[in-house]
Amino acid sequence: MDPLAFITALARDAGALLRDRLNDPRRIEQKQPQDLVTDADRASEALIVERIRDAFPRAAILGEEGGAYRGDGDERFIVDPLDGTTNYAHRYPLFCVSIAYERAGVLEAGAIYAPLLDELYAARKGGGATRNGEPICVSTIGAVANAMVCTGFNPARYARNGRHFGALSNLAQAVRRDGSAALDLAFVATGIYDAFWEFDLKPWDIAAGWVLIEEAGGRVGAIAGGPLDLDEGSILASNGAIHDEIQSALARADAG
Amino acid sequence: MDPLAFITALARDAGALLRDRLNDPRRIEQKQPQDLVTDADRASEALIVERIRDAFPRAAILGEEGGAYRGDGDERFIVDPLDGTTNYAHRYPLFCVSIAYERAGVLEAGAIYAPLLDELYAARKGGGATRNGEPICVSTIGAVANAMVCTGFNPARYARNGRHFGALSNLAQAVRRDGSAALDLAFVATGIYDAFWEFDLKPWDIAAGWVLIEEAGGRVGAIAGGPLDLDEGSILASNGAIHDEIQSALARADAG
Repeated sequence: MDPLAFITALARDAGALLRDRLNDPRRIEQKQPQDLVTDADRASEALIVERIRDAFPRAAILGEEGGAYRGDGDERFIVDPLDGTTNYAHRYPLFCVSIAYERAGVLEAGAIYAPLLDELYAARKGGGATRNGEPICVSTIGAVANAMVCTGFNPARYARNGRHFGALSNLAQAVRRDGSAALDLAFVATGIYDAFWEFDLKPWDIAAGWVLIEEAGGRVGAIAGGPLDLDEGSILASNGAIHDEIQSALARADAG
Repeated sequence: MDPLAFITALARDAGALLRDRLNDPRRIEQKQPQDLVTDADRASEALIVERIRDAFPRAAILGEEGGAYRGDGDERFIVDPLDGTTNYAHRYPLFCVSIAYERAGVLEAGAIYAPLLDELYAARKGGGATRNGEPICVSTIGAVANAMVCTGFNPARYARNGRHFGALSNLAQAVRRDGSAALDLAFVATGIYDAFWEFDLKPWDIAAGWVLIEEAGGRVGAIAGGPLDLDEGSILASNGAIHDEIQSALARADAG
């Protein structure tokens, strides 16, 4: 089975499950303060894991809610069954399912589906990126002053996050903070956001979005510069044109 | 004609116009830095003003893009033909049309339509509030620690906005800043956000949302306490239960 076709269908089905359950009474647990999990996360992950195990029985799975399989081949699926759980718990419409497919250590395909927007983002390495089947590319905005950028906050780094947020609020046309990193990356790929940065994300937050942005002509790296480390997870993603300007602005904010 | 039926149909039609033009090439002007207007704002306002003039020829109109009529009766429509222009210009999906109807100085009805979400919020004074025809009410969350709150920034007040944003980031479950005040107020009315505050808004940003929140069981006031002044525009809106706690937190952040 073609992995991209498989993960796009799967992201859509898991997203439909999330949409169907949105208004149900729900059980919310706090994994940590400001880190929730709902029964919907778990149901979405169960669906995804079952379908992967069925279609790709030898593949490894790395999933946010603990659905991990080591596998015995060189294939791996990296899964966020519900990115933006806090948004979902409050019925804020920005949340998504994110699934990436990796082979021999290379991210080969990514799919992100936002069910309340009915937007399916998909990309295959070397094959371009699409939104609901139509080709997409990053924006052409060349200066932060004309840019809409987005970030996420990590509870362990609020002071630093706040400095960065304030610095960019003064420089950019607009700064958003909407709580779904995977969807934010899809929004960079399709040119809504001109850049996104966040510290300490997990592989399942960024793997699919990374493929999308590279295939949409953008740039993904570490906040501190150099290549992104999927396991370290401090990501700066952009349309390319404003990448260096954003990186410098964040560094200046750190320097005070 | 029933004013609520009139403004809900009108908000939906103007929103459809915005949705249809979303991917067109567009002309963006900067009214001020970080304050844009597009040809879509103007087209939406032209449609709305024409329809009001036709159906309510004696009514006054107060609109964001300069469509003002003094009228010669006691009726007034307060219109934001596109709230969230920067979002719209970047195709970020959170923007809306906001229309309020006032008679003899009393806000009698409000309608807010978010075309990309296909969500129509409506309320009649004394008649409750709805979302796509279904009754809505504010959330029941009783503590800021469990709340999702939202704010907007005003370029003249970034330092103070940043202090408030930082303070609430430490206290609340989540803080959002998504750039459409009118839609944010609708989100308070329907229980997505538990509170929203922003300084220096205009009557067209808040008039319809004010009716919605009061009819959904929430509370609207000035940030500094006391009743909201539509023309002063510094608003704190909430589910009621966390109103005082938010107000105190903002005051503490001001005190340092």
